[in-house]
Amino acid sequence: MDAVSSTSLDPQVSARLKRDDNGLVPAVVQDATSRAVLMLGWMDDEALHRTLTTGRSTFWSRSRKEYWVKGETSGHTQTVREVRLDCDGDTLLIVVDQVGPACHTGATTCFDADRLR
Amino acid sequence: MDAVSSTSLDPQVSARLKRDDNGLVPAVVQDATSRAVLMLGWMDDEALHRTLTTGRSTFWSRSRKEYWVKGETSGHTQTVREVRLDCDGDTLLIVVDQVGPACHTGATTCFDADRLR
Repeated sequence: MDAVSSTSLDPQVSARLKRDDNGLVPAVVQDATSRAVLMLGWMDDEALHRTLTTGRSTFWSRSRKEYWVKGETSGHTQTVREVRLDCDGDTLLIVVDQVGPACHTGATTCFDADRLR
Repeated sequence: MDAVSSTSLDPQVSARLKRDDNGLVPAVVQDATSRAVLMLGWMDDEALHRTLTTGRSTFWSRSRKEYWVKGETSGHTQTVREVRLDCDGDTLLIVVDQVGPACHTGATTCFDADRLR
């Protein structure tokens, strides 16, 4: 499977997206209630299309080279409330209702464990 | 100037960082008070070192190929309260006190203008 596969993403949205060399855009995921930053995933056009149309956060896994729906295995799903594109068109913000911990370690967010300052 | 220049970043921190092919890590910036996600910037080891030691958000500009201190020109500075590394070591979260609007457009955040869903 290719990260820049054909997609049904709205052409008007696609035209505004600025992707990296791998066709990907970072997607910051924020909890709608606590406002905590939960994690960062990566989306290509198809992952964004699926996120917008299904209302479930869907990412492209750079390591596994496949799409993954957050919570598909763990049950820790993300129901999408808002999707926003930044001023440069190169970053997405996904505001979600998170079920359970967002991090695969079991932590509430992926940023809980390692504070540098 | 090179994005992967020699740096004084703590070797124990550097060893945990997973950089992209350009030696960079995305840095999500969050407002400490409103909890809004303000913007996303990019850091190499040196930008992270400067951010940690000066307490001012410092990024690597991918377009201008130079370091930039947020607010250096606009006055819309970011005083760093927390710096966190995620579970994979490939994303930073910078929690800041933001002076004025975070976005170069004058918007409060870089995600205010373009809602896709």
